[in-house]
Amino acid sequence: MITINNIKDISLAPSGAQKIEWVRKHMPILARIESDFAKTRPLDGVRVAISVHLEAKTARLAYAVRAAGAEVAVTGCNVLSTQDDVAAALAADGFAVNGWYGATEEEYKQHLINTLEIKPHVIIDDGGDLLNLLDERPDLGEFLWGGCEETTTGIVRIRARERDGSLKFPMIAVNDANCKYLFDNRYGTGQSVWDGINRTTNLIVAGKTVVVAGYGWCGKGIAMRAKGQGAKVVVTEIDPIKAIEAHMDGFDVAPMLDAAAVGDIFITATGCKDVIRREHFEVMKSGAILCNAGHFDVEISKPDLGTDSVDIKPNIRLHKIGENKGKELCLLADGRLVNLAAGDGHPAEIMDMSFAIQALSVAYVAENREKLEAKMYNVPREIDEYVARLKLAAMGIGIDSLTDEQRQYLDGAES
Amino acid sequence: MITINNIKDISLAPSGAQKIEWVRKHMPILARIESDFAKTRPLDGVRVAISVHLEAKTARLAYAVRAAGAEVAVTGCNVLSTQDDVAAALAADGFAVNGWYGATEEEYKQHLINTLEIKPHVIIDDGGDLLNLLDERPDLGEFLWGGCEETTTGIVRIRARERDGSLKFPMIAVNDANCKYLFDNRYGTGQSVWDGINRTTNLIVAGKTVVVAGYGWCGKGIAMRAKGQGAKVVVTEIDPIKAIEAHMDGFDVAPMLDAAAVGDIFITATGCKDVIRREHFEVMKSGAILCNAGHFDVEISKPDLGTDSVDIKPNIRLHKIGENKGKELCLLADGRLVNLAAGDGHPAEIMDMSFAIQALSVAYVAENREKLEAKMYNVPREIDEYVARLKLAAMGIGIDSLTDEQRQYLDGAES
Amino acid sequence: MITINNIKDISLAPSGAQKIEWVRKHMPILARIESDFAKTRPLDGVRVAISVHLEAKTARLAYAVRAAGAEVAVTGCNVLSTQDDVAAALAADGFAVNGWYGATEEEYKQHLINTLEIKPHVIIDDGGDLLNLLDERPDLGEFLWGGCEETTTGIVRIRARERDGSLKFPMIAVNDANCKYLFDNRYGTGQSVWDGINRTTNLIVAGKTVVVAGYGWCGKGIAMRAKGQGAKVVVTEIDPIKAIEAHMDGFDVAPMLDAAAVGDIFITATGCKDVIRREHFEVMKSGAILCNAGHFDVEISKPDLGTDSVDIKPNIRLHKIGENKGKELCLLADGRLVNLAAGDGHPAEIMDMSFAIQALSVAYVAENREKLEAKMYNVPREIDEYVARLKLAAMGIGIDSLTDEQRQYLDGAES
Amino acid sequence: MITINNIKDISLAPSGAQKIEWVRKHMPILARIESDFAKTRPLDGVRVAISVHLEAKTARLAYAVRAAGAEVAVTGCNVLSTQDDVAAALAADGFAVNGWYGATEEEYKQHLINTLEIKPHVIIDDGGDLLNLLDERPDLGEFLWGGCEETTTGIVRIRARERDGSLKFPMIAVNDANCKYLFDNRYGTGQSVWDGINRTTNLIVAGKTVVVAGYGWCGKGIAMRAKGQGAKVVVTEIDPIKAIEAHMDGFDVAPMLDAAAVGDIFITATGCKDVIRREHFEVMKSGAILCNAGHFDVEISKPDLGTDSVDIKPNIRLHKIGENKGKELCLLADGRLVNLAAGDGHPAEIMDMSFAIQALSVAYVAENREKLEAKMYNVPREIDEYVARLKLAAMGIGIDSLTDEQRQYLDGAES
Repeated sequence: MITINNIKDISLAPSGAQKIEWVRKHMPILARIESDFAKTRPLDGVRVAISVHLEAKTARLAYAVRAAGAEVAVTGCNVLSTQDDVAAALAADGFAVNGWYGATEEEYKQHLINTLEIKPHVIIDDGGDLLNLLDERPDLGEFLWGGCEETTTGIVRIRARERDGSLKFPMIAVNDANCKYLFDNRYGTGQSVWDGINRTTNLIVAGKTVVVAGYGWCGKGIAMRAKGQGAKVVVTEIDPIKAIEAHMDGFDVAPMLDAAAVGDIFITATGCKDVIRREHFEVMKSGAILCNAGHFDVEISKPDLGTDSVDIKPNIRLHKIGENKGKELCLLADGRLVNLAAGDGHPAEIMDMSFAIQALSVAYVAENREKLEAKMYNVPREIDEYVARLKLAAMGIGIDSLTDEQRQYLDGAES
Repeated sequence: MITINNIKDISLAPSGAQKIEWVRKHMPILARIESDFAKTRPLDGVRVAISVHLEAKTARLAYAVRAAGAEVAVTGCNVLSTQDDVAAALAADGFAVNGWYGATEEEYKQHLINTLEIKPHVIIDDGGDLLNLLDERPDLGEFLWGGCEETTTGIVRIRARERDGSLKFPMIAVNDANCKYLFDNRYGTGQSVWDGINRTTNLIVAGKTVVVAGYGWCGKGIAMRAKGQGAKVVVTEIDPIKAIEAHMDGFDVAPMLDAAAVGDIFITATGCKDVIRREHFEVMKSGAILCNAGHFDVEISKPDLGTDSVDIKPNIRLHKIGENKGKELCLLADGRLVNLAAGDGHPAEIMDMSFAIQALSVAYVAENREKLEAKMYNVPREIDEYVARLKLAAMGIGIDSLTDEQRQYLDGAES
Repeated sequence: MITINNIKDISLAPSGAQKIEWVRKHMPILARIESDFAKTRPLDGVRVAISVHLEAKTARLAYAVRAAGAEVAVTGCNVLSTQDDVAAALAADGFAVNGWYGATEEEYKQHLINTLEIKPHVIIDDGGDLLNLLDERPDLGEFLWGGCEETTTGIVRIRARERDGSLKFPMIAVNDANCKYLFDNRYGTGQSVWDGINRTTNLIVAGKTVVVAGYGWCGKGIAMRAKGQGAKVVVTEIDPIKAIEAHMDGFDVAPMLDAAAVGDIFITATGCKDVIRREHFEVMKSGAILCNAGHFDVEISKPDLGTDSVDIKPNIRLHKIGENKGKELCLLADGRLVNLAAGDGHPAEIMDMSFAIQALSVAYVAENREKLEAKMYNVPREIDEYVARLKLAAMGIGIDSLTDEQRQYLDGAES
Repeated sequence: MITINNIKDISLAPSGAQKIEWVRKHMPILARIESDFAKTRPLDGVRVAISVHLEAKTARLAYAVRAAGAEVAVTGCNVLSTQDDVAAALAADGFAVNGWYGATEEEYKQHLINTLEIKPHVIIDDGGDLLNLLDERPDLGEFLWGGCEETTTGIVRIRARERDGSLKFPMIAVNDANCKYLFDNRYGTGQSVWDGINRTTNLIVAGKTVVVAGYGWCGKGIAMRAKGQGAKVVVTEIDPIKAIEAHMDGFDVAPMLDAAAVGDIFITATGCKDVIRREHFEVMKSGAILCNAGHFDVEISKPDLGTDSVDIKPNIRLHKIGENKGKELCLLADGRLVNLAAGDGHPAEIMDMSFAIQALSVAYVAENREKLEAKMYNVPREIDEYVARLKLAAMGIGIDSLTDEQRQYLDGAES
């Protein structure tokens, strides 16, 4: 077993261990899977490389995978979301860990390479950085059976690879499982984005005009929680059907240029770039708050914000723009995922579902490695339903099942 | 042209015409399509049979189809939803109309037959009754190119036909278009079901416990509007994923047997039968209100309610059950679609979208009749988006479009 | 006993009796008070004149007062809210009843006079018409001990009388009891106004811009339920503090002139007159819906709407205004209380609380007739709390009570 | 001028100054008052002692009062809410500052004494600790004209003094101003309590059962925001009218003993003590979260929680109770105000209104010192409305005003 640990400070391990213990109490599905895995050992001798936001919930995923018999190497997927104490706790407990908060681009890449040096059979990717690196270093993928992708952005990249023929092994679209996107993207993002904004700004949300760019599941969650705090919401979209949904949900819908002029707080959740840019900054009110909930820090154009700026509070930078620099725009968390860079990411119970899907999908890749082709697969419906049933059981919630007569009725569909 | 009019009373035409005029003002998309159709005449000489709830909004659909050049025969699809004045207005204006409120089963069937006697090229079905009748009377379908189905129940029936090989011509699943189910099933049902309940009962909703059976799009809409009126909501489901969604939306989730004991108002929206039955009635509180939002009046078991009942107000029947007949349960609208049988159905603006899809789908069937096979087709994405864009235009709402750079970014998906 | 019955048609009694029976099932507090009254007879030999919207819930108030031993004469307080079948049922059951739907001004006044001819000891007024009439006909008040006033408008009039010295006997401000205005004005009006609008227009509320004039308890309820149906809400106010409340509740706040230009549905709830007038009509969108929830039909200026109008549906009149009469504005229920004139008024459970306060206040006037002076009194806190506790008991809801230690802590307020 | 500075570390001043600058941008009303005060100098030569949670927004109040010409001494009112960097910034800028985070009881008292050593003409109290100390040290109050009280708890204490005759000088009930309690207690507490809980626990709120003890303005705000995040809410009350309000707002209402058995998160906002105690702990689920939003840390009985506990994360202590210590209850922020001890307190815009009332009330005491008697006064309506109008102006919101005709109508109240 290769244990390459590049972490900040091993002495932070106790603090990290406490964080992991706290989330463990709130991730019963993963605990159940861990316990099952410990008996069935579906990953005995398998090597798994994980590149996911390196904080306490991710640590629980690493434990579950290890309990299945795997050797596990862990790194982050965003330099501002790595928590050094959690990294230390994992390292102290025998995982191969690479990564620290605030790593440079170069350091970050080296951490990915170190992680892949385990020569994984399965990768868990979040955004596609491991996948990209394997183009450059195919040697590190020589034993690879396939992988799992956590987020929308990674899915988009895999689809692009499918189109241009550059996908070399099977990838499971964990993001697209019902138990993931219906909950993680909507309720998880909805709450954690506002946690990040509120703790950072200490400003009232009620009565404010909040502009949400993108009305996908993340945008829906963010808008719902903005309304739940008393805000007025303006949604921007490029898809006419989503635009009407936003309208029917009671939100204003407008092009960004119009929204820019009235917004107090702007939140991007599109997966696209330059969603808010120079032309929009120019019409904004002074004091407007800008932040991003998308995977990359390109949704708000930082080049267009310029460099005349000052950090006024942790995670708040005031950019002075316009004539005589008379307008101030407040960028949170340097335009990175505000829920992770200025908060603690999604609540534990949400990640419990997402990571349960991940853990079971890794086992699925291992078990079906002979059958899977070099394309993107959906998470099997059975895994999705199994996780849903575990979740209901964990909450003590019962549901109905069809009687035989009802089943016949539905099959026959006689009136 | 065959004009067979079997209607109640032609003298009601002025009242019906007024209703049609009122909804016309609120159905701008269909008006736009009607006006375009009048120029392009995509249905010149085509015969169309329509079996849809026969009220003012449906009349507007009939007008749009006729403007395209078609000969149109109209009937209802539920004997309690036909409005006699609207039927009269259509008859007075030259449509072939069959149907009246409160028709017997036999009369209803005759109305369907009369309608099909136009020997249609295209049918518009709502629930599948025309389709079923064509099994019995294949002669009436001798010129048929295909049809369009409006609702979930009809879709389920078509799928059953696809499975057993009894689908003889192409059917377009209008119900499954985004511009239909996302709006009609959710916001339409959500509002109109409560309109029906409120005007019928005149009881407060705030503080009441409302049990919603089924958390599909209709159930979601009903639950959302229950909450919007201050109710506590209990959702029952058979699907574990939908159950968790309901839980995360802040609703209680329980098996019907538990829900039955606490509910004040019960609403079914499942597409299944006997969802509420004897075992549930037995634990209900006296005074509980029962109603149905599904297509057929089988979701609440009427046989199990028994016959010891009295009509206490229009559309409210008190059923006495239990020991010494000491418990009263209030069934609304005889268990039929409460929004149509005790109200006026979906708001006009909602049906504007659904029927715009219908009208364009009929034209699509006519245009592509050579290419279409005997299976179920989704509404083409272009029709869906076209209707969405007309809707946005009608409301004066602008949205964004991708810049070239953004499009490249999304295609390449480079970070 | 003088029984002067001026009603439309006694043969409607069975329908009215059914309506009364329906609401009886949903007014347990009043039933309890009726039952107590029947034992204690606090109004033995007392004559009571009631002028309240003459529909089923009011009938239940009349029964409770009669059970206490009183002789009761009943009339309405608004010619469009009287339900002829309910009037017939009361007449058939021995009450002195005067009034019919659609009475002329002259007839309405005669009905009030007939009612007062009972020479009441106590009056129950709703809006102040009985009180005003007693100025003209002091002879009818020769035995009067005092009265109870149901609504805000009546309270305003009594205060004006207190100021100018023209109040001649004690009046209880029933409207200002917590168990009345906190529930009736907010949840009652909130629901019943929308019931009236929805059943009359059959238009979608979600996505619409609703303008609510006045953010008192009624306006708060109307706005809350507009939001609960997915509308965007604009509030107009003259009170800066209420304006900020509306803003913090997530609503737009604007002067009526600005609101007029964007609204789809306008609802007045101010107690003032000409709240929407010519200057506002001039900037409205064609098709805008106008309705009123205030006591008098003066909040929307009917003179300014002009007379070029047509009834397009029951309770909807299209007014053509502007250049070439090119704009259509839709006035509901002729500008009268839309929940009563185009609906059935407040839900039964709400009126249960309001009328429980009324019934107990009438007994209070009788009991304390020696002590009360010619001024306006609040409902005693004990009556308010008593009704609240009956309501909780009726719903089976328990609450906490202070321990001795807690009481001491609160009294001493030591930290 | 006496400048006694007892603070932690003057070198923290730059961080504090930045925080103060951030909130300054979001407190325009106070800035406007400061600027007016600088011209009119209503407090020239007046000495003011302030005991309010010592963080950035309070610093802005101190600046406004000083701009009016006053000499200002500042201390905190709760040892866990003092922010050392803000204290340092004020000290560095010439204020007399006493206080540090985590002071002992003894140190805290000494800080209050030091502050009063300025021998104030006016005090600003928050909870009543200055007032209490003046009983012991009447010498420090020899120049006192009166004071202003910020919070409900302080008001309760003043009322107790009025009853027992121990109130020696006039106190303005700032807490009871509309511009204070309608906004601060409801929207301020509603948001900041959840900010504190969310950032501390990182748990999902959607789907959880939240128990709110007390349905006053604070409890209403907390419950509203719980619902806005997707929680199910149970309210406990001792007041039957507030209990019905909670019920009609769609919440469950129950005695604490019943609520205790189902709650996931408990929040107290009652002003009372031992609201959650041994008997409740005994029926709670393991893992339940407990926190307090009331002024003192006595609402959740810490003695009954016992001492077998461990700090698992900052501001989360796990208490092990029950048989074999098998149950874990999580107390946040040691039972102190969770929004201040585990967060940054109310949003700046909210405190802008509250402190605007404070600043104007101090000037009012000074100006009217000859007229005011030794009792509690409400904030004059003019101050309340003035602040409301400044707030509307700051947000650019216009409202209507009555026409002459409307005013006459309301005065005369003719129909």
